[in-house]
Amino acid sequence: MSKERLEAFSDGVFAIAITLLVLTIGQPTKYTDLAHQLGLRWPSLAAYVVSFIVIGIMWLNHHTIFTHLDHIDRGLFYLNLLLLMTIVFIPYPTGVLGEALRRGVGARTAAVFYTAIMAINASVWAALWLYASVGRRLLRAEFPEAQRSMATVLFIAGAFVYTASIGVAFINAYLTLAVQGVLALYYALDPIARRTRRQQVASP
Amino acid sequence: MSKERLEAFSDGVFAIAITLLVLTIGQPTKYTDLAHQLGLRWPSLAAYVVSFIVIGIMWLNHHTIFTHLDHIDRGLFYLNLLLLMTIVFIPYPTGVLGEALRRGVGARTAAVFYTAIMAINASVWAALWLYASVGRRLLRAEFPEAQRSMATVLFIAGAFVYTASIGVAFINAYLTLAVQGVLALYYALDPIARRTRRQQVASP
Amino acid sequence: MSKERLEAFSDGVFAIAITLLVLTIGQPTKYTDLAHQLGLRWPSLAAYVVSFIVIGIMWLNHHTIFTHLDHIDRGLFYLNLLLLMTIVFIPYPTGVLGEALRRGVGARTAAVFYTAIMAINASVWAALWLYASVGRRLLRAEFPEAQRSMATVLFIAGAFVYTASIGVAFINAYLTLAVQGVLALYYALDPIARRTRRQQVASP
Amino acid sequence: MSKERLEAFSDGVFAIAITLLVLTIGQPTKYTDLAHQLGLRWPSLAAYVVSFIVIGIMWLNHHTIFTHLDHIDRGLFYLNLLLLMTIVFIPYPTGVLGEALRRGVGARTAAVFYTAIMAINASVWAALWLYASVGRRLLRAEFPEAQRSMATVLFIAGAFVYTASIGVAFINAYLTLAVQGVLALYYALDPIARRTRRQQVASP
Repeated sequence: MSKERLEAFSDGVFAIAITLLVLTIGQPTKYTDLAHQLGLRWPSLAAYVVSFIVIGIMWLNHHTIFTHLDHIDRGLFYLNLLLLMTIVFIPYPTGVLGEALRRGVGARTAAVFYTAIMAINASVWAALWLYASVGRRLLRAEFPEAQRSMATVLFIAGAFVYTASIGVAFINAYLTLAVQGVLALYYALDPIARRTRRQQVASP
Repeated sequence: MSKERLEAFSDGVFAIAITLLVLTIGQPTKYTDLAHQLGLRWPSLAAYVVSFIVIGIMWLNHHTIFTHLDHIDRGLFYLNLLLLMTIVFIPYPTGVLGEALRRGVGARTAAVFYTAIMAINASVWAALWLYASVGRRLLRAEFPEAQRSMATVLFIAGAFVYTASIGVAFINAYLTLAVQGVLALYYALDPIARRTRRQQVASP
Repeated sequence: MSKERLEAFSDGVFAIAITLLVLTIGQPTKYTDLAHQLGLRWPSLAAYVVSFIVIGIMWLNHHTIFTHLDHIDRGLFYLNLLLLMTIVFIPYPTGVLGEALRRGVGARTAAVFYTAIMAINASVWAALWLYASVGRRLLRAEFPEAQRSMATVLFIAGAFVYTASIGVAFINAYLTLAVQGVLALYYALDPIARRTRRQQVASP
Repeated sequence: MSKERLEAFSDGVFAIAITLLVLTIGQPTKYTDLAHQLGLRWPSLAAYVVSFIVIGIMWLNHHTIFTHLDHIDRGLFYLNLLLLMTIVFIPYPTGVLGEALRRGVGARTAAVFYTAIMAINASVWAALWLYASVGRRLLRAEFPEAQRSMATVLFIAGAFVYTASIGVAFINAYLTLAVQGVLALYYALDPIARRTRRQQVASP
């Protein structure tokens, strides 16, 4: 199985999922007082922005992981498909959350729903990493062992942190969006890549 | 005609078709009692999951077949276009089936419709394989002859099995989804690739 | 400007436009008597099939033309953008035609609209070919001169034939779909590629 | 981080955003007197055409900038993500503007909204260029210094010109579309590429 073609397919799916987010912002139904009508939709815009950042950073994370893989196998293909399934789904809770906030009805439920999807997604990331890295199954030979254990800790912690963040959704839906935006930075800080680089600098 | 560019085009179509599936899950119309409203849509979610797996595995199957092709010609292009036409169509019966199950009306018809599309799709897969492999028209020289006849049997059987699975749709629509999920494994088991690999191991 | 990156971008646009066609088939609104409801939508399905074939063959045609280009320039980029604009638009008249046929109202207007878009598209194809080929501006050195004049005749004739086909739309909307499907074969026969191949066989 | 994979991802996003524009043109709701109904939607068509040209030229601009980059880093990734976020959003104000013009209600607000998005977009372009070029952070060694300062002036001016063009939206919504179409030529003239080429011709 060609790693390059799976990357290209995944890139396509990421690109489409991130672009479909724009469809989650409902068009105004009344055009009198349009500025006000558009203003009412700012929660949808906020949800759009957060989900866009989230998917964008997931793409980067995907790219980083695949950089460290030597090859792929069927197991990774299925975990990757499961991962894409949770990512492609993101526009749905994004639309629900934006609309619930606009209506001022059901926002807590929508926030829990949104965060739960992110927690499932974080768990699939952890599963994919574990599958690829345990026993160095698919890792490149030059990927440092110290990095492997560190990344494993971080991916597993990520699954727990995202699950814990469901608690925030019970407090406030706007806070949920803010927290999810910040949590995306968790993956954005990219511990694998940074430490590998430092290692590379140090190793010779 | 460039095999690489047809693969890239097909990959794009697969990626978009699989992503559009998320649009088949209707947004809630009422936000009071949102948890209940979302729960009512679990059949749409189930249909989304099954169709996502189905298209994902079809992509893998497509990838595998093309790996064994030496080159392509106009006939293959047209069969591939026909194949893509039936795959791009999948979100439509997926949406209909999810909605029929949610309403509890028309579920049997929707299940027959969904399965019929899958049966047509399986027939086009068989046609594409036969076109490419009969007389080894487009196969790579190193593709083993024993594998060719085995794959031919499996693709033709696939068309019959999928057609027969329409019978399940008359029994129960939920069972239909389960059976389609399982049937996807038919292609997932990937007899071509596995046996080729075994052959490669054995041959030297 | 990189020819490869423009091809990749165009491929993406073709792949998405062809996939969005599925959204032109309206979901049933009533689920009692679902088989009948789905049956009523067969004109939308027919329009989907024809437009799918049309866009698929246009992709092939695009691929063929670009194969014969040595390089690209800004003029070609803008003509290509104009071409993509008319192709991306195709789902719109496709949806209108399918819906008009289903309702049995406005079918003639919808058929004229559909055909007019195809005629505009055929004219842009001719313009793109003329731009690339007149004075051999962008053609590869090995592209035979005899082929160039033949292709020029065929592209210009195509623009006229498509324009003339608007007349069919005034007669019958179903006939329009049939004619458009047949006309797609005009490009499918691919006179450039075939004759070039024959030439290559003859030349040594 | 691979420049090629970020280009491919960005190309995908551009291709999808430009294609989703077709969904901004609302389907007719009445099919009696269809020609008149379609005619009423010409503002949506005009908005489609302008936004299509705008996104197409932005793709070209993106392509040109990346040609001059030696490598990319995380900062550029995030600015590129922000840029894509504003581009993916374009179908939304496009749909609002087309619909407001069709209804003859809220057109001024919609035009201001549309232009404001374009101004934000122009500012992000300037930020991305500044990030990449200040201190020649990411530029190729062979990119001429004179070009760098010229391009910097032009990108910053672009942000101001687009912001100033919001004023036009207060005058007339149709004029706004025309001005935006013309302004797209600002980037289309591609000062970076042209001058570089001239430089290349002159330098030996």
